[in-house]
Amino acid sequence: MIKAVQAANVSGQEPLFHMLAYHMGWEGQNAGPKAAGKRIRSTLLLLTCAAAGGDWSLGLPAAAAVELLHNFSLIHDDIQDKSELRRGRPTLWAMHGAAQAINAGDAMFSLAHLSLAGLEQTTSAQTYTEAARLLAQTSLRLTQGQYLDLAYESMENLKIDDYWPMVWAKTGVLIRTCVQFGTLLAGISGKQAKAFSNFAEKLGLAYQVHDDLLGIWGDPAEMGKSAHSDLLSGKKSLPILYALQKNGAFARRWVNGGVPEAELAELAKLLEAEGAREYTQQEAARLTSEALKALAAAKPREESGAALAELAEELGRRDL
Amino acid sequence: MIKAVQAANVSGQEPLFHMLAYHMGWEGQNAGPKAAGKRIRSTLLLLTCAAAGGDWSLGLPAAAAVELLHNFSLIHDDIQDKSELRRGRPTLWAMHGAAQAINAGDAMFSLAHLSLAGLEQTTSAQTYTEAARLLAQTSLRLTQGQYLDLAYESMENLKIDDYWPMVWAKTGVLIRTCVQFGTLLAGISGKQAKAFSNFAEKLGLAYQVHDDLLGIWGDPAEMGKSAHSDLLSGKKSLPILYALQKNGAFARRWVNGGVPEAELAELAKLLEAEGAREYTQQEAARLTSEALKALAAAKPREESGAALAELAEELGRRDL
Repeated sequence: MIKAVQAANVSGQEPLFHMLAYHMGWEGQNAGPKAAGKRIRSTLLLLTCAAAGGDWSLGLPAAAAVELLHNFSLIHDDIQDKSELRRGRPTLWAMHGAAQAINAGDAMFSLAHLSLAGLEQTTSAQTYTEAARLLAQTSLRLTQGQYLDLAYESMENLKIDDYWPMVWAKTGVLIRTCVQFGTLLAGISGKQAKAFSNFAEKLGLAYQVHDDLLGIWGDPAEMGKSAHSDLLSGKKSLPILYALQKNGAFARRWVNGGVPEAELAELAKLLEAEGAREYTQQEAARLTSEALKALAAAKPREESGAALAELAEELGRRDL
Repeated sequence: MIKAVQAANVSGQEPLFHMLAYHMGWEGQNAGPKAAGKRIRSTLLLLTCAAAGGDWSLGLPAAAAVELLHNFSLIHDDIQDKSELRRGRPTLWAMHGAAQAINAGDAMFSLAHLSLAGLEQTTSAQTYTEAARLLAQTSLRLTQGQYLDLAYESMENLKIDDYWPMVWAKTGVLIRTCVQFGTLLAGISGKQAKAFSNFAEKLGLAYQVHDDLLGIWGDPAEMGKSAHSDLLSGKKSLPILYALQKNGAFARRWVNGGVPEAELAELAKLLEAEGAREYTQQEAARLTSEALKALAAAKPREESGAALAELAEELGRRDL
């Protein structure tokens, strides 16, 4: 991955490269594993490739590509949401202004596609062609999810049914793409590939639903964000949509993120009292369990299959 | 091209699609050829393909891709430069806010890569692989040019020598890529392909230098921008760098775009009196003439070659 980003480290462009390296957690204040994030997407891709009987090392250019695509979207998300902290560090736009941060995100996006072109060396032109189309489609779906996420902020009367297409495009599709890259590079297709893909679909949704829990009840120190951040920003996350649909005391207090910071803890308690936390936890558990069933149906190789199952379980256990 | 953007027109995503269609000049207030822009890049690609002996119709997915890539960069440029008008119409961010406009630009970027994948149908997997790598490299170079353009805004003591790497990355590389796509799809290589590429390098720079003239002395009605827009925004364009390097009366008055709007006309006159306009015109004419020489050396097919020469001359004659 460092090699993929090094493609941007050319004469005269050092400051742009260092912006990218900072965002990736390799440089600057508090650089290190925590600043780098969990690298779930690349791990998932490489493990799937191995679990489907392929040589995981051939997937490295694709693994870097999905991670860079994810990080491109984070850079732009932070500008769009005006988030000043990410993984406990100032965000790129907070340090360099929105104009240069938009551009750094665009550079990261370009590097994702450039990294994928490294598959040329590890696979056939035909496989690369399929992979490149998949990456471009996935990028488009990400922007469609982001469109809904932003549009929802100012929309009233949203229901839980509106939640799923948004998070599917925003989070689920890229998670599925990681797994699809893995099976594509392992050279499997048909029923087994479909089972892996089902696993990824459930896992992606489980992951986002659990993230929604963390966005309200997560430990701010652990998250590197402010407390109750989704309540502060007015995100239409699952617990919030659940309570809005219930139309009780929370719904009457809620005004699209316009709640003063001092009242957020109280608002989170109200949300919990109305059953939103329990409902969201149940949804996350249900989706994780369905993911694990689909994984078993994919008959993965023993060691890498166990690692995939463990990854799915760990994602559902992240600290609240 | 409309077909390429239609890929984004799916259920639930209509508003995002209409943002893209508006930016492309197909929809909304004052839609039409003027709002759509000149489509120079796609024209150049298809004419080069024909001039190099290829079937231009096979280049259509690539022609759409370069145009969409260019338009992605315009959407983000307008946010970065806070430009409220483009081609005589309100810019996307001015209409929908920066957050949704950043995302619309990202969608356009994705569509560029997705459109290119259409080459699968018209060419070999090997050629598509080369084209996809070229598009990703070009995207990265665009962001590197943009990095310099933004960084220069607040830099003092820049020289004319600093100008060329910036405009080469910002404008030249994509123009050369258009021509390289044309020769790649025509299946030519070696000396003749190199001559076409030389043509494009000179043409791209000539185009940008002429644009710099328009940015100060262009007719605002014709341009669809405010008068003396580069003086207003503080862009380090060629005439401005020429005068700053001269360090005369203009340099003493110039404060990185901090000049009141009422004094811009006077400032433009000062710039002209110091020879900046004449110098810039000479540079544009020199580069156009070198482009035409390189084109002749490429021995293009008669009809399409003549059209390429005409295009190069027309770009250097755009109204001041």
